[in-house]
Amino acid sequence: MLTIRRLDIEDSRKLIAGARAKADEIGVPMCIAITDEGGNLVAFERMDGGKVTSITIAIDKSFTASAAKKATHAYGEISGPGGPTYGIDSAIGGRLMVVGGGLPVEVEGAVVGGIGVSSGTPAQDREVAQAGIDAFLKG
Amino acid sequence: MLTIRRLDIEDSRKLIAGARAKADEIGVPMCIAITDEGGNLVAFERMDGGKVTSITIAIDKSFTASAAKKATHAYGEISGPGGPTYGIDSAIGGRLMVVGGGLPVEVEGAVVGGIGVSSGTPAQDREVAQAGIDAFLKG
Amino acid sequence: MLTIRRLDIEDSRKLIAGARAKADEIGVPMCIAITDEGGNLVAFERMDGGKVTSITIAIDKSFTASAAKKATHAYGEISGPGGPTYGIDSAIGGRLMVVGGGLPVEVEGAVVGGIGVSSGTPAQDREVAQAGIDAFLKG
Amino acid sequence: MLTIRRLDIEDSRKLIAGARAKADEIGVPMCIAITDEGGNLVAFERMDGGKVTSITIAIDKSFTASAAKKATHAYGEISGPGGPTYGIDSAIGGRLMVVGGGLPVEVEGAVVGGIGVSSGTPAQDREVAQAGIDAFLKG
Repeated sequence: MLTIRRLDIEDSRKLIAGARAKADEIGVPMCIAITDEGGNLVAFERMDGGKVTSITIAIDKSFTASAAKKATHAYGEISGPGGPTYGIDSAIGGRLMVVGGGLPVEVEGAVVGGIGVSSGTPAQDREVAQAGIDAFLKG
Repeated sequence: MLTIRRLDIEDSRKLIAGARAKADEIGVPMCIAITDEGGNLVAFERMDGGKVTSITIAIDKSFTASAAKKATHAYGEISGPGGPTYGIDSAIGGRLMVVGGGLPVEVEGAVVGGIGVSSGTPAQDREVAQAGIDAFLKG
Repeated sequence: MLTIRRLDIEDSRKLIAGARAKADEIGVPMCIAITDEGGNLVAFERMDGGKVTSITIAIDKSFTASAAKKATHAYGEISGPGGPTYGIDSAIGGRLMVVGGGLPVEVEGAVVGGIGVSSGTPAQDREVAQAGIDAFLKG
Repeated sequence: MLTIRRLDIEDSRKLIAGARAKADEIGVPMCIAITDEGGNLVAFERMDGGKVTSITIAIDKSFTASAAKKATHAYGEISGPGGPTYGIDSAIGGRLMVVGGGLPVEVEGAVVGGIGVSSGTPAQDREVAQAGIDAFLKG
């Protein structure tokens, strides 16, 4: 039998609140999604002005980061032509995201969930996702 | 040009908070989804213990209620064998929900969004969705 | 080699105009879709106030009627429990519609396309679709 | 509550008429799709000779441009190997289009919808989409 640790809804709200604070700071309204370690959605918010396309993209970035235990930008780095995971961006019906903005959430070395952010540039999305994790880990 | 009113993220949080309070009261952890009047997701929470299947079901109940401007249980009542909308439950790739728990949110006679709840019985889901609307309308 | 006759874009506009006139008359804003005899979309209009869920439903009603050469309400009549096409409503990813409002367009005994209407009751949708065909056949 | 402006059906017809005039001028029959600011289809026409594959492509270009508030060719410029959004073309089940021909429609600084064109070269598609917008803005 396995015993699994995963984000609960309170953790998820802290992640979203931390991400939202950074999004407000940089002035980019975002879609923010939190998934558990099984890749399943726990919480989501589309800030006023967040993009409609980013709903699915944020959820799928979080899905990828949590379920593959890998940041989406890290997939991007190895998915170019000739790269070892070239073409993986169309896997799982396109849900496997290789664009930055999805990060696994780790506690004591174990992935307990993920956060996915979309609506800005991939660099902004990643910065906002990291801010969510930082806020969460501070408690 | 049309001018449309729709739920913002603050409204959506009020709807979720009201639904969650009722879910706590009846002791059934729920998935709760809020969509805008175009059927697009604004906010989502899976309470601890909410069902994984209910993630999509709650989102699709809210999508149906907001985008079709009709409660999902009202579809259920006319979709049985011999009913006028028999078979509509498999429309839109199965996203058209006819199980209770999805309600349109109306303000001054216009549908401005929807709420979808899933994890309990359809009657419980509907009760919790209505509690969300009641809390929102009270402000 | 086959020679096929099919609706062109001018025909499709006449079908939509006729349907729209009836929709205005009964006061129900509709989604109206026209497909060719291969089931492929030729034209579509969502009247102001037409339902977002009805976009796909109107297109799929027209797809069904033209590509199956059968009115969607006729499918409904034989798709109930125990009926010969029971369960067919979930075929083709749910695109096979058995709810009224989709009609084949026939010219000299051959199906040359279809019209699908959605946003009202199935009876209203069917009435509006028929009005489109009547206007088209009158020229 | 948010108050949103969006294209109505009359606006959508003007956009299509303007695009169609340019398509006639350059002699390339096109598929032309108009979506509202939430990415939902308002109107569509396939000119006689427009490609069947372009039905979905035109709709998805318009969806992308309106819902992401960004021209599809602008996505194309940053989605090549090594680009910041590399791989995003397969997002949302492949609906996120990075091929030119999808443009957001802006009025007074706000995106109120989108136009998507397909059947020619991406440069032709883009030129035809822009002609639709120009005609619409002229009134």
